[in-house]
Amino acid sequence: MDLPVTETLLLTLDKGVLHITLNRPDSRNSMSLQMVQELQGVFTWAAANAVRAVVLRGAGGHFCAGGDVRDMMTIRQKAVDDPRAYQSFNRVFGELLTQVTNAPLVVIAVVEGAALGGGFGLTCISDVAIARADAQFGMPETRLGIIPAQIAPFVVQRIGLTQARRLALLGLRINGVQAAQIGLVHEVCADAETLEAALQRTLADINQCAPDANRVTKALLLKVGHHPLDSLLDDAADAFAAAIQSAEGMEGGMAFIQKRPANWVN
Amino acid sequence: MDLPVTETLLLTLDKGVLHITLNRPDSRNSMSLQMVQELQGVFTWAAANAVRAVVLRGAGGHFCAGGDVRDMMTIRQKAVDDPRAYQSFNRVFGELLTQVTNAPLVVIAVVEGAALGGGFGLTCISDVAIARADAQFGMPETRLGIIPAQIAPFVVQRIGLTQARRLALLGLRINGVQAAQIGLVHEVCADAETLEAALQRTLADINQCAPDANRVTKALLLKVGHHPLDSLLDDAADAFAAAIQSAEGMEGGMAFIQKRPANWVN
Amino acid sequence: MDLPVTETLLLTLDKGVLHITLNRPDSRNSMSLQMVQELQGVFTWAAANAVRAVVLRGAGGHFCAGGDVRDMMTIRQKAVDDPRAYQSFNRVFGELLTQVTNAPLVVIAVVEGAALGGGFGLTCISDVAIARADAQFGMPETRLGIIPAQIAPFVVQRIGLTQARRLALLGLRINGVQAAQIGLVHEVCADAETLEAALQRTLADINQCAPDANRVTKALLLKVGHHPLDSLLDDAADAFAAAIQSAEGMEGGMAFIQKRPANWVN
Repeated sequence: MDLPVTETLLLTLDKGVLHITLNRPDSRNSMSLQMVQELQGVFTWAAANAVRAVVLRGAGGHFCAGGDVRDMMTIRQKAVDDPRAYQSFNRVFGELLTQVTNAPLVVIAVVEGAALGGGFGLTCISDVAIARADAQFGMPETRLGIIPAQIAPFVVQRIGLTQARRLALLGLRINGVQAAQIGLVHEVCADAETLEAALQRTLADINQCAPDANRVTKALLLKVGHHPLDSLLDDAADAFAAAIQSAEGMEGGMAFIQKRPANWVN
Repeated sequence: MDLPVTETLLLTLDKGVLHITLNRPDSRNSMSLQMVQELQGVFTWAAANAVRAVVLRGAGGHFCAGGDVRDMMTIRQKAVDDPRAYQSFNRVFGELLTQVTNAPLVVIAVVEGAALGGGFGLTCISDVAIARADAQFGMPETRLGIIPAQIAPFVVQRIGLTQARRLALLGLRINGVQAAQIGLVHEVCADAETLEAALQRTLADINQCAPDANRVTKALLLKVGHHPLDSLLDDAADAFAAAIQSAEGMEGGMAFIQKRPANWVN
Repeated sequence: MDLPVTETLLLTLDKGVLHITLNRPDSRNSMSLQMVQELQGVFTWAAANAVRAVVLRGAGGHFCAGGDVRDMMTIRQKAVDDPRAYQSFNRVFGELLTQVTNAPLVVIAVVEGAALGGGFGLTCISDVAIARADAQFGMPETRLGIIPAQIAPFVVQRIGLTQARRLALLGLRINGVQAAQIGLVHEVCADAETLEAALQRTLADINQCAPDANRVTKALLLKVGHHPLDSLLDDAADAFAAAIQSAEGMEGGMAFIQKRPANWVN
């Protein structure tokens, strides 16, 4: 299976798990337009190629420091001719966040160093987030006279309005321990070694779960709050009936009775 | 007042509090179709008979280990003739969860041992949840090739999307202490004795509160997020006016001035 | 700039920050109709006069103990002639809570002593809440035979349904430490001195943030969940484009490059 060709990302595929490393360490993996577009392509590829989980992390000790300053300057020039240049540039990042939110696979964010602005937003859309205790999370936008825009809905969805408003309106930075306290990340690790161990445990857990069942479950959880309860429960019953009669459902029941691992376990 | 006759539940009524014990200890109180239907009947009876609070717990050291395997096998046979057999079987549990959520009385879950799948869902719809530190909570469905279906909306409502997605997509089990950290339960107790004491404190607190005021308050809280703010506040003002002019509102004001317990305190 | 004239509030303005002290210490700053109306006027004035932040606190060691008993008695008499007297009286407090929620400035609640009923509600609508560890938060309404009415939506928005239902249906009181655990307040301080220091740190952080960017950010965060995601992201992109091309956006970029404080920093 040929992986997509990318310049800003390092990709490796191992037993159905795609490891994506944001690879612009000179700018603390700041989110260039090219990186956004390459991520869109990679997630489209992953969804089409039965990838079970994606691990997202950054090269050189940082996760992602936010928007790219050089890109900003390019847009400033472009805006002279195209009055919608800023909107388009900003909006595409929201498209990426929407796509990754709905990706039919488990997304794991592994956060070291800076996770600011867009990097904060990426953390917010992961299914599992594991962070170093000394990682730095924040939305510094208003200190620069601008606003956290595309990430705003994903931040409120993740940590709630109460925490989001304080972090955004004070331009605060918090570390990994504080990030876990407000529900931004799930696990905090003291050093690189324990971070790696936590990631391996997470991947081992995902490996126990049936891939299609996980896809259906994720889609169902994301629908909650966006549909009337009764119709959601009707859909859930249909999905349950489909799952239990599927190959996975049959195999899962058999494996349980026979006390052996199911055939999706690597 | 005659209590409903049930086979899978033990019932006792004491000073307006109905104690329901799930009583299928041989299968860790797994949720059979009969148990679901008996619970529906008991909650309908409780709502019609001025029950102020329900205490829900399990016999034999477990709360509820999820769906019943024997029932599953029955459905498998039934599905040969009735293509909607799985949907109907699954959907009825969501009806129970919806009914208990909206029950006009305070629901207290007391959790020891396993609270898995449907047992996890029951915990999610309680007004107060008290757990042993060594209780085990989890959604193991995707490890069996199926999905957490009817419980999904109630889980997301209870612990939020961030925690729900990780627990469901990894098929994790967490203990009582972790359950309190993510807001699944309110109180954690080290042993059976402190668990009982916490329950008694909770019942004593409920006893101080006016039963009708509690019913109206619970219904109002459940409406939040499902109606426009202004109309919700209009309705709340109407409910306030009705409450303060009711017998309870009069008695509550008098008791406060006269520094005596109100007449609803047992 | 002349401050509004008020009887129940003390007002001071310092470097764009308006300090409001609820000043009815004899009744633990209970919320009289006059106080509600004066607060409405002051927040309208603040929004029209480029106030950047409001600090809300109570005189005499308490924040606010809820509704005013004397007012209640007045309404009881008025209700003889005006059957809607109770509704109107109750509803106006919800108008205040709605107005403060949407106020285009950062609202900081500093809570000492009692924050009950309406005082609990005021805490719920702050952008930042700092409390003494020995503060007392609660919704005692149902113990008096009445209901938490206008505050209900703001409480559920703030602490979630799980915590709101237990606190309201048991009429519980919790202290500052417990309030932080359930996300009602952001910071807890052991004594008056550390409380003051925490407030000063918060004001210093707000001072670093561009005032208009903060206004736009707050409005954006409040919209989340009330609009379809795509249209919210479109609006956010427009707001981003406006911000980066505004005087603040230009100055913020320049100050960053020149490594100096931006001109909005006092």
